[in-house]
Amino acid sequence: MPVPLWIAAKRDGGELPDDAIRTILEGAVAGRVPEYQLAALLMAIVWRGMSARELATWMDAMINSGDRLTLGDIAGRKVDKHSTGGVGDKVSICLAPLVAACGVPVPMMAGRALGHTGGTLDKLESIPGFRTDLDPAAFRRVLRRTGMVLAGQSRRLVPADRLLYALRDATATVESIPLIASSILSKKIAEGADALVMDVKVGSGAFLPGRTDARRLARTLVDLGGRSGLQVVALLTAMEQPLGREVGNASEIREAIEILRGGGPADTRALTVRLGAEMLLLGHAARDLADGTRLIEAAIGSGAGLDRLRRCVEAQGGDPRIVDDPTRLPRARFTGRIAASRSGVIARLDAGLIGRAATLLGAGRMSKEDTVDAAVGVTFHHKVGEAVTRGQPICTVAYNDPRRWNAARPLLVAACAVARGRPRRARLVLETLR
Amino acid sequence: MPVPLWIAAKRDGGELPDDAIRTILEGAVAGRVPEYQLAALLMAIVWRGMSARELATWMDAMINSGDRLTLGDIAGRKVDKHSTGGVGDKVSICLAPLVAACGVPVPMMAGRALGHTGGTLDKLESIPGFRTDLDPAAFRRVLRRTGMVLAGQSRRLVPADRLLYALRDATATVESIPLIASSILSKKIAEGADALVMDVKVGSGAFLPGRTDARRLARTLVDLGGRSGLQVVALLTAMEQPLGREVGNASEIREAIEILRGGGPADTRALTVRLGAEMLLLGHAARDLADGTRLIEAAIGSGAGLDRLRRCVEAQGGDPRIVDDPTRLPRARFTGRIAASRSGVIARLDAGLIGRAATLLGAGRMSKEDTVDAAVGVTFHHKVGEAVTRGQPICTVAYNDPRRWNAARPLLVAACAVARGRPRRARLVLETLR
Repeated sequence: MPVPLWIAAKRDGGELPDDAIRTILEGAVAGRVPEYQLAALLMAIVWRGMSARELATWMDAMINSGDRLTLGDIAGRKVDKHSTGGVGDKVSICLAPLVAACGVPVPMMAGRALGHTGGTLDKLESIPGFRTDLDPAAFRRVLRRTGMVLAGQSRRLVPADRLLYALRDATATVESIPLIASSILSKKIAEGADALVMDVKVGSGAFLPGRTDARRLARTLVDLGGRSGLQVVALLTAMEQPLGREVGNASEIREAIEILRGGGPADTRALTVRLGAEMLLLGHAARDLADGTRLIEAAIGSGAGLDRLRRCVEAQGGDPRIVDDPTRLPRARFTGRIAASRSGVIARLDAGLIGRAATLLGAGRMSKEDTVDAAVGVTFHHKVGEAVTRGQPICTVAYNDPRRWNAARPLLVAACAVARGRPRRARLVLETLR
Repeated sequence: MPVPLWIAAKRDGGELPDDAIRTILEGAVAGRVPEYQLAALLMAIVWRGMSARELATWMDAMINSGDRLTLGDIAGRKVDKHSTGGVGDKVSICLAPLVAACGVPVPMMAGRALGHTGGTLDKLESIPGFRTDLDPAAFRRVLRRTGMVLAGQSRRLVPADRLLYALRDATATVESIPLIASSILSKKIAEGADALVMDVKVGSGAFLPGRTDARRLARTLVDLGGRSGLQVVALLTAMEQPLGREVGNASEIREAIEILRGGGPADTRALTVRLGAEMLLLGHAARDLADGTRLIEAAIGSGAGLDRLRRCVEAQGGDPRIVDDPTRLPRARFTGRIAASRSGVIARLDAGLIGRAATLLGAGRMSKEDTVDAAVGVTFHHKVGEAVTRGQPICTVAYNDPRRWNAARPLLVAACAVARGRPRRARLVLETLR
């Protein structure tokens, strides 16, 4: 098998033939192609990129490495939402029930916290009893029964992605737009989704902070999805400051429930409504964005979304009482505060630093083996642009381990900046690519 | 150990700190750094290159991975010669005895045929009994006794190079000038050489066919050697057509002996004399190139070179009678011919194709596991620029297996071109870098 010749072709900027891509990925999953050859190829892909044809073949070979869910017996277009990862982003937890309540099935496979970004699965697991490790039969059963499901990726779907992801993590080959795009979309196609709304974050708390990179990823996702039968709409959204007021796990579940009750912070509600409207459009349940917006807002107002979440929590083994009484969620033992060092307006709440601080507190993971503390987190009393007076708390920190609080504190101090004058109000949705 | 962070730094065009380079190479040899991380780093080095400081540290770490010969008890500056690999290049075999006869010790560790290029060790092993696998004690003993030694690389010298080379071969990361340069020079420094003449081949039969790449490699070798206490002179020499008239193993030994007897083809003699003069200069045994040229020619004329080769063959266990009676070397059973398809002058004898044809005949190796047939080869009756008439043989092929001859024949036909008019006479030595 001329694998070194194929690596050389990619190294020199050439295109890999389809059979080379299939042979390499099948061989890698079967253990016939050694990891060192795959690692060299991945670095060559980081260097040279992939053509649209190469990428479609690559993703197809990834999908074919494992099982594929068929959701044809569940009526309607199945629509998922995925985010590239942010800080304080609890939108999935309120969005999925609202879209399901409007009649569009949402088969959502979510991820875990890693690095400075939070993970929907970790947040959900702060609900006592809630199970995210569903086998394909349970996944389909919950989806059929409640119109939604919030689960982790089955081990039988896209095993090539798990292999590639572990290798990319160890070889500094994560940062490649075609590799990122195929990793995301292969799982969505394998889970049986017909359409996807992608929330591509931009800013200091994002995985790809720069807008140019984010736009390239968004374009690649839309085009690659289109070539492979998955309709994708991608939004670039701001991730300079955390989304909403809560950064943590249990606390973010509380905030998502607030949204479903018609309250919660304006930015989180606005993003939920916008993404929901896009999903209804993709699910053929709304005529246009305005119609979709109206339907999502109605599902908030009527409590239909809250009801869906309650049914889903129950179907996945969780305690449904938390939906009506979020005080049942875990709470930390201690609290600390970061106070404004001067009077003025909040000029910056650096999402990247805040995400790292939350990880140090125990809300996230430095490495995949770390466990997450559901109770710890940071609550912001102000958003960027709001006035504060000297000594007033900018945020309150919930912690269980004083050493972790000591470690996180300087990052939080550095993350929060107060200035004179009024900073420009940042837009939340920066661009939409269809 | 933050190996992925170091890989990322190189991927992004940064410089690796010295301790990172040492940690990675020591870890690789000890099995602590997995091959997939090394493979990704190697591809990032192919992409981004290495600074002079990085490269010196890298090579130093390679040398420190194993033993280092000390040849301080052998008087004089030890001077070696190395070629990047060509077709028909038997110069080492006549050069080392001539330089040794002029009083400069030559501790030569040579390589084996791979791909389309021949290997000095394979050529030497066509001498019955000749041993190239000398342990360090035997290497020093032969050098002390005869002033020269022609051996393979000891397994205890630069084990990092063997590991890196095997990995580079399997991961398409051979083609990197810093990696090539450090692979060559680490072994020369570890073998105890004080100075080195590098013959960097340019043309279709060369490892790096393009002159720009060859010049970059030559410059890197001179600079890297200088930083590390090894004086290097690098010559760019033509490898468009094979060197001399013989391409094979036993036949190249015969041609090298012809040179030592004052005969042989003009190009091989000229290159031997020039490289020898450079080596005498580096060995402080000649005042200038003209003086060195005179001394080498005198060692040919007096038979002193031939006598050195005889002593070296005997010291390394070979049959010294072959030096006076080369008909004792193995001969193939059959011969075939490639005839001129028209009258004119030889316009091209493509060294790359001829090397591949010789490999198909059995004179070289497609992969490291292949065995070499000492008796087979190609004898050219003409050089580029000489007149031929239609039907006259351009070359005679010695073979043992008719199937191999059938496989090699079309390559030889394609390699030999006859044209009208007189082609420009190519220079042999294109540039000299000191």
